[in-house]
Amino acid sequence: MGEFALIGQITARLPQGAGVALGPGDDAAVIAAPDGRTVVTTDMLIEGRHFRRDWSSARDVGRKAAAQNLADVAAMGARPTAVTVALGAPGDLEAAWVLELADGVRAECGDVGASVIGGDTVGSEAIVVAVTALGDLEGRDPVPRSGARAGDVVALCGRLGWSEAGLQLLLEGQHVPEEVVQAHRSPQVPYSAGPQAADLGATAMCDVSDGLLADLGHIAEASSVQIGVDVSALEVADPVREAARLLQADPISWVLTGGEDNALVATFPAGTVLPDAWRVIGGVETGSGVLVDSTSYAGRAGYDHFS
Amino acid sequence: MGEFALIGQITARLPQGAGVALGPGDDAAVIAAPDGRTVVTTDMLIEGRHFRRDWSSARDVGRKAAAQNLADVAAMGARPTAVTVALGAPGDLEAAWVLELADGVRAECGDVGASVIGGDTVGSEAIVVAVTALGDLEGRDPVPRSGARAGDVVALCGRLGWSEAGLQLLLEGQHVPEEVVQAHRSPQVPYSAGPQAADLGATAMCDVSDGLLADLGHIAEASSVQIGVDVSALEVADPVREAARLLQADPISWVLTGGEDNALVATFPAGTVLPDAWRVIGGVETGSGVLVDSTSYAGRAGYDHFS
Repeated sequence: MGEFALIGQITARLPQGAGVALGPGDDAAVIAAPDGRTVVTTDMLIEGRHFRRDWSSARDVGRKAAAQNLADVAAMGARPTAVTVALGAPGDLEAAWVLELADGVRAECGDVGASVIGGDTVGSEAIVVAVTALGDLEGRDPVPRSGARAGDVVALCGRLGWSEAGLQLLLEGQHVPEEVVQAHRSPQVPYSAGPQAADLGATAMCDVSDGLLADLGHIAEASSVQIGVDVSALEVADPVREAARLLQADPISWVLTGGEDNALVATFPAGTVLPDAWRVIGGVETGSGVLVDSTSYAGRAGYDHFS
Repeated sequence: MGEFALIGQITARLPQGAGVALGPGDDAAVIAAPDGRTVVTTDMLIEGRHFRRDWSSARDVGRKAAAQNLADVAAMGARPTAVTVALGAPGDLEAAWVLELADGVRAECGDVGASVIGGDTVGSEAIVVAVTALGDLEGRDPVPRSGARAGDVVALCGRLGWSEAGLQLLLEGQHVPEEVVQAHRSPQVPYSAGPQAADLGATAMCDVSDGLLADLGHIAEASSVQIGVDVSALEVADPVREAARLLQADPISWVLTGGEDNALVATFPAGTVLPDAWRVIGGVETGSGVLVDSTSYAGRAGYDHFS
């Protein structure tokens, strides 16, 4: 299938939402920005480094590529509105794989009401997927990483340790518990919690893509504060615990340092009444860095991709 | 240099314009969209396919990657406001090359007053540069490819054949005339002519990235019209003519089918008084396809990358 025929098949699969003034097929697309500002973020995924075709379906890869970017938009307190996708692909890649990838991007965007409004396809040796996501603040102030203040509470919404558990299982050739393996293939992101946190007065927020301690470290550094995490407040979900048992690993280290679950972590003024989906996991003090149960964390804080 | 140190050095080089509400360094950036709509486009460049490091400096590659996207924004009738850049790079690529690339992107954006507001860096085998550009319509209607009507004139602003001449010289190991070689490395795009054409009532517009006949073919197809080009109205610039003489090639074929100069071509209602920068090169009639001097063009209409 030629490039133009393939693009035609892709765009035919992409329903355009109400905010799309001009969809794919022109030099550029036009999307509504009713707030008068646009939130923008971009991420690139490379085959062999961010995903493996023997581990993940094209649909999983599409979902994950979209999710990473949509989560970044949500972490600003915005509602995702649109994405563009640039795809580099080897000439012998089956058209069906590309169409499934597009289906995955569309499905993840559909979960938040965003449209896939443009893209590019080029030839390359390895598969490369670059997604850019846009969002609408709907009148909210963006929630940066830099606004945490001493006295704030730290709260979490979403999963931690799932993707890391799935990755470690896959690295050992294991495929159960299936929930965590699937979580590594594509995350379940609590998108609506981002605007919710902004409405609740969150002072700082980011999504947990590098690992809880690493991402809290970004907030601590940008805000010039110290952040403390209480391990007893962290939930270790049953399938994460089961994976750790199978691999004789420490599930708490996965929860503290595993990446790619795209949970949202935010700081709120003390006394903020938080909905059930948000769980207080620590607090903000004067100082610098991140402490776990009042001490430095001995393990590695960050998350490396598998290659 | 580690990834975070490199990102720090890159962002330190990126001045943020007045429309930037939040620049690089957070989960996402925030850019003003005063019109209430945002124009969005994305392109991916792959080393060995879209550029060669032995032919182009990192600065050239950065300029060209930005220019392709900024030209797409201008071709909608919009003013470019911001770009994001996702970079895949081998681990042994010198930091200096990456910083020069950033300088090139910044320089091209600076020419139009756009800011580099975000990005991503990942490891990859080949160098991959994915740019997304945003733009502001400033109250104009976007000029699509689909609005050309029988009776319109076809007008061109900018260079044609320069990049192709430069490419053919480089393929033969030649480096003069230097102007066309440099034009292949990074184009000179008439950005302001895009909003100007929209203000003048352009009915359809696109930038000439695939080649004049190919891109007019896109307008003809999207508008369900026939477009005729008068060869006598096309300018063959002196350095293009000189390159053709050196290579014993036909310069007119370069002008008709060479890509990557990012000229702007638009259709206007008959009688529109056009500024000097716009040259009438043909007309629109009922029918389909593109004719050159009233006949089908015998050569290849499209442009292929060099690999």
